[in-house]
Amino acid sequence: MSKLEKGLIQVYTGNGKGKTSAAFGLALRATGRGLSVYVIQFIKGGFDYGELHILDKLPNITLKAFGRGKFITAKPPEKEDIKLAEEALKLAKEITEAGEHDIVILDEINVAIDLKLIKLQEVIEIIKKKPDNVEIILTGRNAPEEIINLADLVTELKDIKHPFHKGFKARKGIEY
Amino acid sequence: MSKLEKGLIQVYTGNGKGKTSAAFGLALRATGRGLSVYVIQFIKGGFDYGELHILDKLPNITLKAFGRGKFITAKPPEKEDIKLAEEALKLAKEITEAGEHDIVILDEINVAIDLKLIKLQEVIEIIKKKPDNVEIILTGRNAPEEIINLADLVTELKDIKHPFHKGFKARKGIEY
Repeated sequence: MSKLEKGLIQVYTGNGKGKTSAAFGLALRATGRGLSVYVIQFIKGGFDYGELHILDKLPNITLKAFGRGKFITAKPPEKEDIKLAEEALKLAKEITEAGEHDIVILDEINVAIDLKLIKLQEVIEIIKKKPDNVEIILTGRNAPEEIINLADLVTELKDIKHPFHKGFKARKGIEY
Repeated sequence: MSKLEKGLIQVYTGNGKGKTSAAFGLALRATGRGLSVYVIQFIKGGFDYGELHILDKLPNITLKAFGRGKFITAKPPEKEDIKLAEEALKLAKEITEAGEHDIVILDEINVAIDLKLIKLQEVIEIIKKKPDNVEIILTGRNAPEEIINLADLVTELKDIKHPFHKGFKARKGIEY
């Protein structure tokens, strides 16, 4: 059972680097206290991220990623991408409602909403119905206003300076 | 020896929650790739943070914290706080110059500069003289303009909404 007395809704959004890292850093802190963390990654499944090689070595952290390992650009989105995002959302609902994990991280869920892979209203339902002792963390750029209004803690990560603008390539171990 | 071909200067600043977590999430990713991370915490030593209970269980992450476990408000700062921050800076210089760790995280160093515990010019020297294959990550609010100018990647974390404004108390496992 969850050890938090009062779980909040946290949002990490904006165009800056570090949203997922901030959520994972928080997971690290939580697991250091014996809290239980469940991470559901929207869109990201199939990509090879450095953190995936270490997270399963940590106690009390479970991670499930849903995605096909490629960027989603099609408008309207392809059926297969919608199907995977809906599966991720279904799991998010189950895990949150069950209340057995202290923290549920919904990584890149804001992007999944923005790309119309999942319905905003269904995410709002999950948030509104969450057990009191469960903390939900939503990441991804373009967080919808409705979610920001519901959240207790919102941090915007702003890109002030980024080497990718100068054609810099993503580096293994740092950017992925 | 460092495995990065080209190490950058990253800065996480601003008044929002998640600067240290973003750096620690990055450390998690890096260690998942077999990179070596050295974390030097300015000001924070003596506080009990959740992440400290788990970081030493991770491979390739070393953490040294310097501080007295209380907030620094005195102006001018007390000698003991200056001494500890200078020790942290000395270690930062040694570890960076040695080039044996891929990533050096200087947590809250911006605050140490802002509080006049250490000299901005000495931090600039460390950055300018760093070996090519070492990545330096500087965190803390109020990053000085000179450091932002030197950095390759700067992210500002902006507090959009925070429950502390409503008198909410910090929670074990989440805020510390």
